[in-house]
This record gives sequence, structure tokens and C-alpha cells, in this order.
Amino acid sequence: MTKKDLLQGYMIAPNPDGVNLTKTVEGLDHFGNTVVSQVIEEKPLTIYLNSQEIVTAMTIGDYPEYLALGFLRNQGMLDGLNTVSSVDYDEDLSVVVVRTKTETSFEDKLKKKTRTSGCAVGTVFGDMMEGLEGLKLPASSLRISWLYDLSNKINQTPSLYLAAGAIHGTVLCEQNQALVYMEDVGRHNAVDKIAGWMASNDVSGSDKILYTTGRLTSEMVIKTAQMGIPILVSRSGFTAWGVEIAHKVGLTLIGRMRGQRFTCLAGSNRLIWDVGDENGDDE
Amino acid sequence: MTKKDLLQGYMIAPNPDGVNLTKTVEGLDHFGNTVVSQVIEEKPLTIYLNSQEIVTAMTIGDYPEYLALGFLRNQGMLDGLNTVSSVDYDEDLSVVVVRTKTETSFEDKLKKKTRTSGCAVGTVFGDMMEGLEGLKLPASSLRISWLYDLSNKINQTPSLYLAAGAIHGTVLCEQNQALVYMEDVGRHNAVDKIAGWMASNDVSGSDKILYTTGRLTSEMVIKTAQMGIPILVSRSGFTAWGVEIAHKVGLTLIGRMRGQRFTCLAGSNRLIWDVGDENGDDE
Repeated sequence: MTKKDLLQGYMIAPNPDGVNLTKTVEGLDHFGNTVVSQVIEEKPLTIYLNSQEIVTAMTIGDYPEYLALGFLRNQGMLDGLNTVSSVDYDEDLSVVVVRTKTETSFEDKLKKKTRTSGCAVGTVFGDMMEGLEGLKLPASSLRISWLYDLSNKINQTPSLYLAAGAIHGTVLCEQNQALVYMEDVGRHNAVDKIAGWMASNDVSGSDKILYTTGRLTSEMVIKTAQMGIPILVSRSGFTAWGVEIAHKVGLTLIGRMRGQRFTCLAGSNRLIWDVGDENGDDE
Repeated sequence: MTKKDLLQGYMIAPNPDGVNLTKTVEGLDHFGNTVVSQVIEEKPLTIYLNSQEIVTAMTIGDYPEYLALGFLRNQGMLDGLNTVSSVDYDEDLSVVVVRTKTETSFEDKLKKKTRTSGCAVGTVFGDMMEGLEGLKLPASSLRISWLYDLSNKINQTPSLYLAAGAIHGTVLCEQNQALVYMEDVGRHNAVDKIAGWMASNDVSGSDKILYTTGRLTSEMVIKTAQMGIPILVSRSGFTAWGVEIAHKVGLTLIGRMRGQRFTCLAGSNRLIWDVGDENGDDE
């Protein structure tokens, strides 16, 4: 595929030449020769909900507004986009403030919560699980041919990953088309940026597929379910709890996607086997 | 190497057959055939410092006492092992309580802190950076031949990674010998378990090398420096801030270690080039 073909159809593609997303650093290679390496930026970004400081995320720094909005939504701290009145990013302070028309119930809850639970590694987990109660993801289908098209295209799309490594990617897809490809040092940030983009553009998850380079942990499965996306695909592996939650919410979970190979450990009822055996053994 | 050779010299080796560390799950492969997959466990573990709840970590669940102790030390919440009076793990409650002889200054600090800063993604970052002020890691040396021996041995050692994937490993090494190999779903947990083991056994980091499968982010570099280990090696890549902090504290940072290849982006003064050119071009 040409570069033009690879970028065709994307609403947001990765930005491997983006200013301030990578840095060149001098070092030595294994022969002891001087080399100049391209490495990923990693910067703190503090997210506020109205006057309440919520979290400091380590991020590459692109799309801070989407990251903040998506993080708060995936944490269950925002009920819907209708309540958000503004999202302001201050580059000098590395701060994003998400304001809502009326104070959310979460601000009080958080003040109470942090007194007892201190700080959470990864995420404010209890509240994420709370939002899943009774959630059943909608019916949809996934053609195996779409899966192969997507994997092939995403792996070849010019990205920070191909340029500098040490970064995760998450891609929002519909049928065999990759739509929004976000990258970040934390795989949860890449997903949150997609959630923020979806919320800002009023995009439904029900007919989408989420592709990630990262592992299929409980956190990834929960975020995908929160976004209303019924299908999650990764080139990496699974955790037992990720699989368990996927079953609970009716999410299709596909991992270890390499070439034409993959493993589906939940929701295989959505799969449509439209690819012949001859495509199944290329490795 | 035979399995016996591979395990020779380890004080703690991975436990790929460990009960409750993996689970078998039924699913479909890419042909639509039923497969039984081995996947990694992922469970919450809540860490208390005296009566203060500090964090809930997502972990595979082995060595909870080392994880708790190492986490608190790496966060700068414990001054030294001498203050710890007990470490108690309650399996039913998934709780570890680390008790100190007298209340630490941190408990009050944390209560104050969380009221303003809410919850932190990943780590209580501010405090980790605080502990680095004025830190200079000790002089030591790293033979390139050790690096190749370690990488070769670690990659072949039977592990949860080889059995089920979706897991990170961190290995404490001395010269060309791998001593303690910890694995966990979060790479920060694997490092914290090593820190806990070092504290419990009064082991100094000054003559050690830390090998990790994960990326060389700021968090990994800070933890390694907190542990007093002057050399950090990874098969994965770098972030710019990780490289910057390594320069600041005088840490040797080697990444992208594959076969005989690697890149050193900080502290190359410790390297001793004892391997001829003939070993440098095997790929």
C-alpha cells in the first residue's frame, strides 16, 4: 500500500512528524558508536473537573482536551456530553479544566472517597465497575475479513510507534475502515482520547470496533464497554479478569492477533467466518 | 541451555506452574476451532500503611508482602526497613498491612495531599521525584559480555511470559548472574516486588543491574534510582523524560536490547567493551 492508501479514510491519523511528540537524543549503539535516537515525549497533564483536581496523567501531550474529556467519561464522572460547558487547556500550566453547567455529583463523592481510599494505581477502579452494572453491549457483527484488513492497514500506517517505539496505539474502526488512530505512552490514555473524540463528535460506539496494541486487561475491557463499543481487538494477550468482564457485559474479545492468527476468548457469537481456509495458514 | 542451567543461580525464579497465577479459558482460534488458552490472573490487592489505606494495585497475586513493602519504599513512604514492625497479608480480604514502630510522617502528608490532588494515575508522582533531589548513583561498571549473558539467559528462563504472555518481568542481576526474577501484569509491580525483596533481605543496589521487559519511562527510571541501582536495561524503548532523569541521577540506561544489539542513552561511562566486533553483528 502507498502512504496515500494507508492514510485513506482516517479522520485522525497518527502524527509521527508532530512537533514536541518526540525528541532526538544522543547515545551509543552496541558497537560503541555515537547514534542519534528518536524517543517519545512523556509529560504530566493535570485534569480538573470544575474546581476539583482529579488526576495527573503522563502523556505525549497531543489532544489534551480529548484526553481529559474521555478520561472523565470513562471514569463515570460525567453523565453525558450535555452537561459539559467548556474544556480549556492551558499549555503553560499543563492543565485541562473540564467545566460542567452544574456541579456534578462526583466532586463531593471524590472528596469523600479519597479520604478513605488514598490514591489509586491506574484508575479509580470502584467507580468504573459501578458503571458496568446491568450493562449489555448491543448486537453487532464482525467479519473476519474486516479483522484482517484492519490489522494489515493499522500495522503499516505511519505512526509514532514505527518511528520511535515505546508507545501504545488505539484505533476506532467501523467495518474494515480505521477512523481515528490515537497513540500515547499509556495505553489507557490512547483509549481515553478516542472516548473524548467520540463524545465531542457525538459518535456512537454500537457499530464500532476498537483495536489496541496493548494487553486486554480488566481496565481496557471496562473502558471499551463504557464507550458502548461491543468489539475489542488486540495484538497482545489477555488477563483472566479481562476475559471475565467481557463475558459479563457481552463484549467480543479478540487477542494475540498476528498475521491471520488470533484467539477469541469472549463473544464469538458476533464473528462471521467470511474468509476461506486458504487465508488461515499464512504463517 | 538445559532447564537446570537456566535456573542455576536464581534466588527467586519465575513460577509458570504456580497455582492461581494463570487460568485456562476456552475460546476459538482463527479457524473457528475450540481452543483452551492459558491467561494471566489479575487481582486487586489493597495496601495499608498502618491504619491508612494507600493504594489498590492490580497484580497477579504472588509475593504480596514484597509488593507492599517495595511499593511503599519506592514511593518514599518508608525511611528504611528499621521502622517496619510487621507486614501482614490477609488472603481473604486481599489486603496487606505494613506496620511501622511509630507513625510515619507520610500518613498525615497523604491525608492532606489527597484532599487537593485527588487520585494519581500510576503513582504518587510528586513524592517520588522529591526523593531524587541530590541523589547520585554510585560508580560501578557493566561489561558488555554480562549484558549478553543476562539477556540470553533471561529470555530463555521458563516464565509466565513464555507460558501465557501479557505480563512484564523484572530481574535483579549482579555481574552476569540473574538473581531474582519477578513477573506481574503491571511492570511497576514487578519492580516493587524486587524492591521489597531487597529491603527484606538487606540487599544493596549499588553493585546490581536491573533488567526489565517494559519500557524505560520516567516511572521505571525513578524506581530504579530509588532502589540505589545504577544500571537499568530493557528490551523495550525509551521516553524522553526517562532519559533526562537518568542523566540527572547518573543512571546507565540501556534499551532496545535484542540479540547483540542495544542502545545506551545515558551513563555510557560505566560500559566496558570486552566483546569483540565478531559478536556485534549476529542479526
